[in-house]
Amino acid sequence: MKKIIFPGVAGLVSGVLAATVFFADFNTTTPTTSASVKSKAEQVYVPHGELDDYYLFNSGGHSGQLFIYGVPSMRHIRTVPVFTPDPATGYGFDDYTREMLGDYTWGDLHHPAFSETDGDYDGKFLFATDVANNRVAALDLADFHTVDMLKVPNSGGPHCAAFVTENTEYLFLPTRFAVPMGNEFASLDEYSETYRGVMSAVTFDEEEQKLDIAYQVSLPPWSYDKARAGKGLSGKWAVITTYNTEEATTNLEINASQADRDYIVLFNWEELEQKIENGEYEEFDGQKMIYPEKHKGGIYLVPVAKSPHGVDVSPDGKYFVASGKLAPAMTVFSFEKAFEAIANEDFSSERNGIPVLNYESVMEREVDPPGALGPLHTQFDDKGYAYTTMFISSEVVKWDYETGEVVDRHDVYYSPGHLVTAHGDTAKPRGDYLVSLNKIAKDNYLSVGPSHPESMDLFNINGEKMVHLSSTPVNPEPHYGQMIHRDVINTFHVYQQDENNPYAVYDQKNTRIERDGDHVSVYGISMRSKFIFDAAADRPDVIEVNEGDTVTLHITNTDFDQDIVHGLGIMDYNLNFEQMPGQTKSLTFVADKPGVFPIYCTNFCSALHQEMTGYLLVKPKE
Amino acid sequence: MKKIIFPGVAGLVSGVLAATVFFADFNTTTPTTSASVKSKAEQVYVPHGELDDYYLFNSGGHSGQLFIYGVPSMRHIRTVPVFTPDPATGYGFDDYTREMLGDYTWGDLHHPAFSETDGDYDGKFLFATDVANNRVAALDLADFHTVDMLKVPNSGGPHCAAFVTENTEYLFLPTRFAVPMGNEFASLDEYSETYRGVMSAVTFDEEEQKLDIAYQVSLPPWSYDKARAGKGLSGKWAVITTYNTEEATTNLEINASQADRDYIVLFNWEELEQKIENGEYEEFDGQKMIYPEKHKGGIYLVPVAKSPHGVDVSPDGKYFVASGKLAPAMTVFSFEKAFEAIANEDFSSERNGIPVLNYESVMEREVDPPGALGPLHTQFDDKGYAYTTMFISSEVVKWDYETGEVVDRHDVYYSPGHLVTAHGDTAKPRGDYLVSLNKIAKDNYLSVGPSHPESMDLFNINGEKMVHLSSTPVNPEPHYGQMIHRDVINTFHVYQQDENNPYAVYDQKNTRIERDGDHVSVYGISMRSKFIFDAAADRPDVIEVNEGDTVTLHITNTDFDQDIVHGLGIMDYNLNFEQMPGQTKSLTFVADKPGVFPIYCTNFCSALHQEMTGYLLVKPKE
Repeated sequence: MKKIIFPGVAGLVSGVLAATVFFADFNTTTPTTSASVKSKAEQVYVPHGELDDYYLFNSGGHSGQLFIYGVPSMRHIRTVPVFTPDPATGYGFDDYTREMLGDYTWGDLHHPAFSETDGDYDGKFLFATDVANNRVAALDLADFHTVDMLKVPNSGGPHCAAFVTENTEYLFLPTRFAVPMGNEFASLDEYSETYRGVMSAVTFDEEEQKLDIAYQVSLPPWSYDKARAGKGLSGKWAVITTYNTEEATTNLEINASQADRDYIVLFNWEELEQKIENGEYEEFDGQKMIYPEKHKGGIYLVPVAKSPHGVDVSPDGKYFVASGKLAPAMTVFSFEKAFEAIANEDFSSERNGIPVLNYESVMEREVDPPGALGPLHTQFDDKGYAYTTMFISSEVVKWDYETGEVVDRHDVYYSPGHLVTAHGDTAKPRGDYLVSLNKIAKDNYLSVGPSHPESMDLFNINGEKMVHLSSTPVNPEPHYGQMIHRDVINTFHVYQQDENNPYAVYDQKNTRIERDGDHVSVYGISMRSKFIFDAAADRPDVIEVNEGDTVTLHITNTDFDQDIVHGLGIMDYNLNFEQMPGQTKSLTFVADKPGVFPIYCTNFCSALHQEMTGYLLVKPKE
Repeated sequence: MKKIIFPGVAGLVSGVLAATVFFADFNTTTPTTSASVKSKAEQVYVPHGELDDYYLFNSGGHSGQLFIYGVPSMRHIRTVPVFTPDPATGYGFDDYTREMLGDYTWGDLHHPAFSETDGDYDGKFLFATDVANNRVAALDLADFHTVDMLKVPNSGGPHCAAFVTENTEYLFLPTRFAVPMGNEFASLDEYSETYRGVMSAVTFDEEEQKLDIAYQVSLPPWSYDKARAGKGLSGKWAVITTYNTEEATTNLEINASQADRDYIVLFNWEELEQKIENGEYEEFDGQKMIYPEKHKGGIYLVPVAKSPHGVDVSPDGKYFVASGKLAPAMTVFSFEKAFEAIANEDFSSERNGIPVLNYESVMEREVDPPGALGPLHTQFDDKGYAYTTMFISSEVVKWDYETGEVVDRHDVYYSPGHLVTAHGDTAKPRGDYLVSLNKIAKDNYLSVGPSHPESMDLFNINGEKMVHLSSTPVNPEPHYGQMIHRDVINTFHVYQQDENNPYAVYDQKNTRIERDGDHVSVYGISMRSKFIFDAAADRPDVIEVNEGDTVTLHITNTDFDQDIVHGLGIMDYNLNFEQMPGQTKSLTFVADKPGVFPIYCTNFCSALHQEMTGYLLVKPKE
């Protein structure tokens, strides 16, 4: 077995984990009196006054949202709304976010991706895609809010996304389904001819906080499943797994599992960028579209065991590891061998106009742990090990990706999909913790009826053996997560006064209600413990309008104090939105119901929160 | 100090808590080697294979939902959608729940209330009200799903609701705001004359799982804040706190805090029931409306320190405890003294046509812990103690409600609203645990930006001293919770086959797609790992319709296996709904967009989940 090297750990670990713990026996059933040995319970316990070491950002799947946990306590700290409206914060209710969401009331958030600098998380932004409705979103990690969203045309569900390149040059969005170009109607009988799987190259302008589509690639009508950008020596490359290269149009359970091999798409994004600069593309539907069969080069296929799922890149950028959900083995491929094969035009054939590399020329080794079944996804630690989930045999396998040697295995409860280690998909993984994101919980937790939660198993991975620490339920469905150290995240607590915001009012004397035809604009303040819509009025907390008026509320929270959030809800008008400390938000609605409607603060703010009320009076039409 | 009696505890405690723990020193900073002393960490740690002892059902506030936690681990197990759509389950998307929610996309869920038998939770149903949009809902605790919802007319926000009587004869829904009767328009200048605070008496038919309004009471135009039903000797009575008896119409922060006393409304619901039977009411807007000033009797006012918040009834039904958010003291009132005062017509005056009892005749004692400020809510244990949250001094005070003696105090972090003990608002409280639901978290947890989570402090309350065990973040905003022992909850795991359901299909050969004019009905199956919409078709997993058709999907999950949930999402059509094991669900939509739209299973179900797909093809109009 490879010699295990324990580096100096003092700088790697903070919070509740003592450095000496790595060499200890973690068994809680035989506690010792040594203060250096912590029970599992104590390893995950974060007392009041201390903080978790890591944030875990979990995809919320078909909730459309993002779930934030603290590690090691695994406490659920916050659900951040992304693709689905969230009345608790007014996301999708106020004007800015309502326009951003458009008519969509749900999304299917699969794979979150932190922005990266030099191949490591830089803690600035997080990107996520909506498989259901073809959207991509960006979150600002300074305030944990969604700042931009883009609807992606020609797309059939950006499942294997977002994955970012090592300096966030691009987010790539390959798609799970093939659809006709331009989302036109076309019979499934014409599938191979008219359907395509379009990958989008998306950029993000950090200054403007804006997403944009740089170009698209019209790939064959296959399903693109998981993907990763390269690192270091492979930094300009990326890999994508495919299935249904059979191009079946029904009953994929059977028909997409016929061929012995599917492919990994290996592409060089610098070369594609160059093609765009050189004009080697066609305009389609307003997009710059690369067709690999016409605009040759930069895209290759690597044969892989049939119906692969995950593909992951080692921290040093030397290898990509593919896992086959119907296979017993992980396959390690070498980027360097692939580059050599490409240089030598060592191709076995061509498929849909794209060169196919010789499997044997690119494959480094196959790793087949005895009895392990259904490898799905791989993450890495800081000591040269890979960790792979086995969906069918319900375990995590720890192995040496340089030698293929399996060094440890541990059960999980049950059926793990993705797993996540600290910075575990970056060039600089940190070890410390591993979380297995399980698909089935069965009877792990108190029953909540026929629909069970999913589950997460937390491991300490700083020793040679993985140590199972705890089991945590989670709302369906954490497809993927990323674990980032708290030192990398820099939030702020209060929005600064913005004198250039025409809608902001910081001084009570500037509060006012203005009418322009049938549009009423309210420039108001929320503060402990009252609303002031017009300080000069007899009743400063009352808005009176006529039935049919369009009303815009511009409300500024003038409590510049940490954690003092106000909400403004209007009864029976189905309206609520929060204003964070110092923040100005706008909300527009049509006063289409006559009558009297209480207004109240929905976010507990002070001892007199219950008194923070007012009325909307809507005079009926004559 | 009152002698503390520790009853035999073996039968009271299960799970991770050892009986001997009650007498121990819980300080983790000086651990001992005794196996009988568990650290705080170990007291809250529930290892894989064991279950939490209690469920905590927390209101989700302006999320509109219900949050379920396990106690003592405080792990968040499930969010149950109630007043807000939830795409993760399809709540508000399938036909049944979409009709139930109507046009509302949010609610403000305040005070959950379990159904009761003999004054204790019976584990059958849970009721909750929506302050924002005047609704009441019922959840079936066999499957943790919302089964009925009612829009309550004439109502101004049922804040102090739902509270149930000791055998769930009624849920009473008094309202926080006064509005004009019938929700007509009326100037605030006519507030005292035309505005009212209408309380609704709602019944629930357990067989039919249907909510109904029995009658309403048109109370004065005050704010009704918190309420409780009596128990035992007070079982036919209920109490409600009021504020703004000043009838102010603006700036309540100041104007509703003028009078030295507000009132507790004390009413006898059996007498009100009798009035309805006797015809002592007026019809209003289709409701049987009792006007206290006309239909005299059964309703009384008890003066109380100004702007009270909580009012709670002791387990023995002898006392009601009112807390004043601007006061330093809790006031204990005697039901028996109140009954005597009523019998003797010992009234000091009348207010809005309702007799006012003499404060001194009804008050038992005032309890004023030194330095304590802002008492809000009180719960009880099994040993004769009351626990009251102090919002301003951020603590929980433990006191003897028979003597008024304060026996313990403990800080919480920070600004507690409600608190909850095990079965702590019933006739049979269980002690064990106390959870303080705090409004402010400040820097307790990893920062998620300007909007912080709320927080919960967990205490072990089986010893004389409260022992603080852990701190847990929670999404805004847990106004109230109820803690119920796991033995009282009986869920099922699989829906039984229902041969009388015309929309259910259990045999593949009965799957079919039927057209009736421009309405297409799909009788389909979801199963590992495919959709079958029409088994006889060339492509059984494809639905082809014409642009403009109305399409109804009736989908039955034929995997009668625990925890195997399927979801059906249609890309770009903003549609998703789950089918639990054995369940049939229907979803109707208009195919108004031509093109090709992938259909896929959104809830991970098997190794070939990714292959569980199909297509919706919508032929464009000629």
